Amino acid sequence: MKTAIKALCLFTLFCGVANAEVASTDEVMFKMDANGDLIKPEGYREWVYIGTPVTPNDMNNGKAAFPEFHNVYIDPISYKHWKEMGEFREGTIIIKELVSVGSKAATSGQGYFMGDFIGLEATIKSAKLFPKEPNNWAYYSFSNKDHSLPVNPTAKAFPTASCAACHQAAAADDMVFTQYYPVLSAAKGGEKSKPE
Amino acid sequence: MKTAIKALCLFTLFCGVANAEVASTDEVMFKMDANGDLIKPEGYREWVYIGTPVTPNDMNNGKAAFPEFHNVYIDPISYKHWKEMGEFREGTIIIKELVSVGSKAATSGQGYFMGDFIGLEATIKSAKLFPKEPNNWAYYSFSNKDHSLPVNPTAKAFPTASCAACHQAAAADDMVFTQYYPVLSAAKGGEKSKPE
Repeated sequence: MKTAIKALCLFTLFCGVANAEVASTDEVMFKMDANGDLIKPEGYREWVYIGTPVTPNDMNNGKAAFPEFHNVYIDPISYKHWKEMGEFREGTIIIKELVSVGSKAATSGQGYFMGDFIGLEATIKSAKLFPKEPNNWAYYSFSNKDHSLPVNPTAKAFPTASCAACHQAAAADDMVFTQYYPVLSAAKGGEKSKPE
Repeated sequence: MKTAIKALCLFTLFCGVANAEVASTDEVMFKMDANGDLIKPEGYREWVYIGTPVTPNDMNNGKAAFPEFHNVYIDPISYKHWKEMGEFREGTIIIKELVSVGSKAATSGQGYFMGDFIGLEATIKSAKLFPKEPNNWAYYSFSNKDHSLPVNPTAKAFPTASCAACHQAAAADDMVFTQYYPVLSAAKGGEKSKPE
């Protein structure tokens, strides 16, 4: 019990520090625990959806690096900033929820249809928290290796080499693959850049 | 000018009537015009995303009935009701935004990646507005036949035969394909039905 209370106090203290660190820019929609690990965000399915790539096994010789749907969301505060400024603000969090391929045929035709939730990942941009990461993005995964549920309640940041290289090389906007996220492309930087 | 003012007055009058008709159940997130046609909803990309099926041409002998991604959203008031009650309330609106297949290869692998917005469709459940439609769902499309933009500002309801038959035959919940919408499946009817 004492341990639990101590952990809670440390957690509260840390959150205070973490919030103070990013308070100069704006409210953020994520929290770290006493170890500096990211706590699994809640309510992200009601954030702003931005797009879904799918790279299934049967299109990648049975060995896809990412064989599931990736449902991608941005927190609503950072979406508002993106719409106005066309950039990812300090404190942006983007969520990637992994969904299995559930079916390949329906009354609408042959294709890919979503099955079950099987994992959860996130990336956060913060110059204050991640001054040494490329463009200040850190990457996290709450998923289990076998994609079983529940996912983990906290996650450590990946080493830089694990994720940043592909994002630096191929993503259209500040290491984010906006070229595959039409909601972001259409909303970028205000009305002037919106397609008719 | 007089015609415009007259149209505006009729519109205002009609909206008053339409709102009165559904006010006994709850606020709704759609509006009809003076002709009873559905006005294109605004802000739906910030509603609750529920899933994306894709049935591309190259998986359907080059002639897919629906060759694009379908990004599907539910209005947030009806999502709250779904979570609590496990049913689609009077006044539910579900949006289907059509997105082209933009790419079939990326650094993450071979697959399907979203391109551009090319159309917009909607379905509304209302016993008061559509007493004779199966399960009281009416279906609308704002899309142009050639998928050019902008989509149309208003839409007439489809004849019942155009959409309802497939939805009645194959959809898992009240004519909605919840079996392909994991966000709805996971949230249905409160915590007790959520997977661990």
